Amino acid sequence: MGGCARPGGTPRPVVLDAMGGDHGPAETVPGALAARREHGVPVLLVGWAEDVRRELRRHGGDGEVEVVHADDAVPMAERGSAAAARPDSSLMVGCVLARRRGASLVSAGSTGAVVTCAVRAFGRREGVLRPALAVALPTSAGSTVLVDAGGTADPTAEMLAQFALLGVSYARNVLGVADPSVGLLSIGAEPGKGNRLAREAAGLLPGMPVRFHGNVEGHDVLAGTVDVVVTDGFTGNVVLKNIEGCVRTTLDMVAGAGIAPPGRLAEVARLYAADTHGGAALLGLTGTVVVGHGSSRSAAIARACVVASELGAEDGPVPVGGRASAGPVA
Amino acid sequence: MGGCARPGGTPRPVVLDAMGGDHGPAETVPGALAARREHGVPVLLVGWAEDVRRELRRHGGDGEVEVVHADDAVPMAERGSAAAARPDSSLMVGCVLARRRGASLVSAGSTGAVVTCAVRAFGRREGVLRPALAVALPTSAGSTVLVDAGGTADPTAEMLAQFALLGVSYARNVLGVADPSVGLLSIGAEPGKGNRLAREAAGLLPGMPVRFHGNVEGHDVLAGTVDVVVTDGFTGNVVLKNIEGCVRTTLDMVAGAGIAPPGRLAEVARLYAADTHGGAALLGLTGTVVVGHGSSRSAAIARACVVASELGAEDGPVPVGGRASAGPVA
Repeated sequence: MGGCARPGGTPRPVVLDAMGGDHGPAETVPGALAARREHGVPVLLVGWAEDVRRELRRHGGDGEVEVVHADDAVPMAERGSAAAARPDSSLMVGCVLARRRGASLVSAGSTGAVVTCAVRAFGRREGVLRPALAVALPTSAGSTVLVDAGGTADPTAEMLAQFALLGVSYARNVLGVADPSVGLLSIGAEPGKGNRLAREAAGLLPGMPVRFHGNVEGHDVLAGTVDVVVTDGFTGNVVLKNIEGCVRTTLDMVAGAGIAPPGRLAEVARLYAADTHGGAALLGLTGTVVVGHGSSRSAAIARACVVASELGAEDGPVPVGGRASAGPVA
Repeated sequence: MGGCARPGGTPRPVVLDAMGGDHGPAETVPGALAARREHGVPVLLVGWAEDVRRELRRHGGDGEVEVVHADDAVPMAERGSAAAARPDSSLMVGCVLARRRGASLVSAGSTGAVVTCAVRAFGRREGVLRPALAVALPTSAGSTVLVDAGGTADPTAEMLAQFALLGVSYARNVLGVADPSVGLLSIGAEPGKGNRLAREAAGLLPGMPVRFHGNVEGHDVLAGTVDVVVTDGFTGNVVLKNIEGCVRTTLDMVAGAGIAPPGRLAEVARLYAADTHGGAALLGLTGTVVVGHGSSRSAAIARACVVASELGAEDGPVPVGGRASAGPVA
C-alpha cells in the first residue's frame, strides 16, 4: 500500500470479489466491465461462476474478463473472525489469487471480513501492529486523509501512533503532500482532553517521526486543519458515515428551501458521495487492498477498481518498521 | 433534568457562569441582558464582579441583574478533575448558588469542568451511574436526541444502557415524543458489529425498558432513523462537532458553486449553528444544567439561558433508579 499512480505504465491487474457488497454480481460485474472498457483495467472476477457469467452475458461481456469460481461467499453481516473460517469464499480466494498474481484486491464486502482475509492472505508489513483504513475526504482546501476509517475498532495507543505513520505515507505518496501534518481526533484542543485512548496517544505522537499538530476536533475533519486525521477505527467509521449523511441532509435542506437548482446540488453531492471517493485503502499490508462501500453500485465498483489499479504496492515502501515482511503474518 | 417547559408560569431563575466560555464577560453579560430583556428570564451573574459590572455599564444594564462575586475562574483548558479543586471559581460558586436557590445553571465553560462541578454541587439522581449530555439535533423528520454528547468520555456498557433511559426521558418530556425509539451508534447494523463497548452495550439494551431499535450508523444520526441515538461521550462529542463542521463545509461548497443566494444559505446554516441549539442539557442530576458551546457569543448565551429556564428540574422525574437522591453525590 501507499504507492503512487503508475503514469504511462500498463494498468496493474485487479482481482474483484464479485460476491461482495449489498448487491453482489448485479453491480460488481457491470462495475468490472466499466473499469475494463473505460479505463483499460484488467479485472479478474471471483465468485459463483454461474451467476457471474449470467451477469456478464446480460451486459454483453461474455469472455471479456477472466472468471474464477468460488464455492462460498461471506455474508455482509459476518464478523471478521468468522470470515477467516471460510477458505472457499470469493473474498478469501480473491485475496490469495491477488497475492499470487501481484494484483490489487477490491471488495465491497463487510469491512471486518475484508480486513481479516486480507491480513491472512497478504500479511502485514514488518513492524505493523494492525492495518488501518484510509479515506481521502475532499475539503475546501484539498483533501484530508482520515485514518483509521474502520480497520481496527479497538486499537491501542501504540497502534494509533502507527496509524499516523501509515496516513502520512498515504498523503505523501497518493495525494502528493510533501510534508503532511497530523492531527489526533479528540474532544478538545488541549492534550489532556479526550478519552483514555486519545490521551495516551497524545502522549506518544510527539515522539513519532511525523509533523504532529496536536489534537483536532470533529469540526476540523473537513476544515483542512491538518493533512492527516488519526483516530480509532470505531470513531473514524462513525465520522465517515456521519459526513455522508450530513452532506445529504444539508443538501436536502437547501433543496427544500428551494434556493438552488437540484441538478447543481447533485454535483456538490457527488463530491462526497460513496460513488466518487473510490473506496478506502487498507494500509499496512504487503499488498494493495481497496474496500468499497457495502452499498456500492457499478460506478463505485468501477472507481474502486481504477483506484486499486493505480495504487501500487511495490511502488513506494511505507516507513514502518523498515522492509516489508517476506510472507503472510496473520 | 428532563422537565417540561413551564407554560404560563413565571420563568425559572438562571445562574450564569459569567467567566465561562472563550470570551467571558464580553459575551456572557450581554447574553444575560438579552435573556432578561427579550424573554423575561431572571439571570444572576457569577464572576469577577469588577469585570462583570464594567460590561453591564457598557450595555446600559448596571443594576439590572444581580451580580455575585467569585474570586477565581476555571480556564477553558482545565481538566474536569482539576476544576473541582477550585471552590471559589465562578463555575463552582454558581453551581452551589443555583442549587441553593432552585435555579438552573448555565455555563459555556469546559464541558469536563461543568460536569465535575455540577455533579459535586447538585448530586446525581439515585441510581444514575454517570451524567450524560443530551443535544437535540434538527433532522429532516424533526429532532433526534444525541446522548452522550460529551459528558462521560469513557463510560461502561452499563452507563451507556442508562444513557438510553436518560435520552428517552428527555425526548419524551422536552421534545414531546410519546414513545421514543432508541438506536445504539455503531459501525454496522448487526448486533455483532462495533468496538468492545458498543458490542457489550448492544447486549444490554434489549433488556432495558426502552423501545430499542438496534444499532444505527453515522449516517443515521441526522436521518431521523431513531428518536434517541446513544453513544459514549467521546464519539458523541466528535459527531456533534463533526456535524457543525460538515454543515458549514457543505454550505460553503454550495456557495462556492454560486448556485444559491448566500443570505438564504445563512438561514439553513442557522438551523444547525451553535447559536441556535441552545446548548446541551446535562442529564442525570438533581438540578438543571445547560452547557453552552465554548465559542458562544451573546445570542447563544441568551438562548442557553432561555432553554435552562424552561427546563424544570422538578417538573418531571427521570425514570432512573426511582426517586432523586436527597443530597449531593460526588
